[in-house]
Amino acid sequence: MKRRQFLQAASTGVVGAAVASPAIAQSAPEVRWRCTSSFPKSLDTIFGAAEDFARAVSDMTDGKFQIHVFASNEIVPGLQALDAVQAGTVEMCHTASYYYVGKDPTFAFGSAIPFGLNARMINAWFLTGGGLDMMNEFYKKYNVTMLPGGNTGTQMGGWFRKEINSVQDLNGLKMRIAGIAGQILQRLGGVPQQIAGGDIYPALEKGTIDAAEWVGPYDDEKLGFARVAKYYYYPGWWEGCAALNFFFNQAKFNELPKTYQAVVRTAALMANQQMQANYDAKNPGAIKRLVAGGAQLRAFPQDVMEACYKVSNQLYDEISAKNPEFKKVYDAVRTFRNDSYLWWQVAEYTFDNFMIRARARG
Amino acid sequence: MKRRQFLQAASTGVVGAAVASPAIAQSAPEVRWRCTSSFPKSLDTIFGAAEDFARAVSDMTDGKFQIHVFASNEIVPGLQALDAVQAGTVEMCHTASYYYVGKDPTFAFGSAIPFGLNARMINAWFLTGGGLDMMNEFYKKYNVTMLPGGNTGTQMGGWFRKEINSVQDLNGLKMRIAGIAGQILQRLGGVPQQIAGGDIYPALEKGTIDAAEWVGPYDDEKLGFARVAKYYYYPGWWEGCAALNFFFNQAKFNELPKTYQAVVRTAALMANQQMQANYDAKNPGAIKRLVAGGAQLRAFPQDVMEACYKVSNQLYDEISAKNPEFKKVYDAVRTFRNDSYLWWQVAEYTFDNFMIRARARG
Repeated sequence: MKRRQFLQAASTGVVGAAVASPAIAQSAPEVRWRCTSSFPKSLDTIFGAAEDFARAVSDMTDGKFQIHVFASNEIVPGLQALDAVQAGTVEMCHTASYYYVGKDPTFAFGSAIPFGLNARMINAWFLTGGGLDMMNEFYKKYNVTMLPGGNTGTQMGGWFRKEINSVQDLNGLKMRIAGIAGQILQRLGGVPQQIAGGDIYPALEKGTIDAAEWVGPYDDEKLGFARVAKYYYYPGWWEGCAALNFFFNQAKFNELPKTYQAVVRTAALMANQQMQANYDAKNPGAIKRLVAGGAQLRAFPQDVMEACYKVSNQLYDEISAKNPEFKKVYDAVRTFRNDSYLWWQVAEYTFDNFMIRARARG
Repeated sequence: MKRRQFLQAASTGVVGAAVASPAIAQSAPEVRWRCTSSFPKSLDTIFGAAEDFARAVSDMTDGKFQIHVFASNEIVPGLQALDAVQAGTVEMCHTASYYYVGKDPTFAFGSAIPFGLNARMINAWFLTGGGLDMMNEFYKKYNVTMLPGGNTGTQMGGWFRKEINSVQDLNGLKMRIAGIAGQILQRLGGVPQQIAGGDIYPALEKGTIDAAEWVGPYDDEKLGFARVAKYYYYPGWWEGCAALNFFFNQAKFNELPKTYQAVVRTAALMANQQMQANYDAKNPGAIKRLVAGGAQLRAFPQDVMEACYKVSNQLYDEISAKNPEFKKVYDAVRTFRNDSYLWWQVAEYTFDNFMIRARARG
């Protein structure tokens, strides 16, 4: 089917699911959905999660429920994916909730807040700790409902043209960094910049910016940053993990037969896990190649971490004082995070610590 | 339906899926399967993963594909679950691959080897790193095929009546510990014991054994070990994670329509993730209560960890020298683990390290 034909067919939404259909047709109607992704196909691990999701939905419904995934800008620009779902232009999107903090900072908790949860913790919070229900209560007013749609794990802190030796070095630093992390950098004297992925390399090369964060080794390698900004800092304290999200137009989701709703929920969790597995399997080779190619790994100095942590807590308190919904979710996330790390330090962290040292000794 | 009726109905296997059925019936036949679990219902997080799986399969097929989960000993004893699937007595089971190292030590890699992969890593190895295909190649000769069926995360080292201050304290230590970990303990002078879950408490109380490992805080709390062996050691170096597994009789799986095969695969990955989320959300509260109730947390001394690591590597080399299938998988796991920890130490571990210290300072 050509794209134009598909778009026309898709615009009719649910096909053959009339209310008066016999039971068999009602339980397995032909459905065509469009999913707009916030990502380009070149980010194959992230973009691929939506494709994995769509493939599973099709495979599990004998091809009756088909979801076509469109890259960023094919239907709407990447950062308008949620709006397109809210308006019903498309039935669903694959995006990152924190892209929409301009509407309300509470959106951040669906993906990541600086010094927030790691990847296992956000899944535990979503799936068992009440986080998904809490976020969906918040998303209601946007006419959407959310399911987890993948995770990157802890991201890197990004590429810097000069070394950062203390918190003073953040003063005047022009860095491509967005959202709440950008606000934190700004409070420490930095100058956050919003630059699209494809424009980062020339900006770093010319020195228009001093630093840029992107994702992690596998994605960063493709953009070649090591050639123009050799210091590769970690960890990305603003993304202890970054959860991606599937958002569904609430009315469109409600129209699905219960069976298809179960298919969608289960396929989303499969894709959620597969994306993390893809990053975890692909990042190790990429970081080896990056270092072999000249990237200089650097940990953020302790005083930089401390200062950013302190400022982030101040910022969260300020937002909480004027935004009760943010406060409600923040209190829940903070408690969940603190309890989780109390436990994490015992078995998980100690095991990882030993294995890292054992590996280093060879 | 009463259990007896169910058993009779279930014994017929696929119901109404005759080869000559019209296409619609072929694509969505009525199927009844039995899943024998290796676990009692009291281990609700582990046992629950099979129930989550079965519920998702039913929900996604409009109730046409139903899987009834039986607890350990309802059909066969827990440690015979795989045999029952191999023989076709039941279509599938929920178990831990490493229970079957007596048949071949290669089974261990499906769940855990001492000083092996952590939970994210084993999922990455299974789903992206070729691990699932490699294990299923091995499982072929047992007429079964495997899908991931949950994970506990890093387990605890267990409950000890006396402190372990050096590797010498392992000498003569009678410990309830099974499989390869038991062999490692034995090489360091310990006396591994095989004791069923329900018999551990009285054995510890009477001093018949000096120590026992079980799972982690959430499961351990229910058995009340803190009252009879107050030192709670970590990490369980023999289970950096423990993957559970769904095994399917190969012929029964092949008989399923492709649609149902996709349903089974996707539901397994959902349950796989949900079980980890359940443990990650429930362990923090349990460890707080255990410590409040008198459990004394202790890290294994560094020389104990080093000695066990050294002996485990020797053991793997010895098994590899005489078992080419074990060697093939071990080489793959070791490479995957070493590459994974090379990357893990950069972003994930550094982020966790900072968050643990920040939490401890309050």
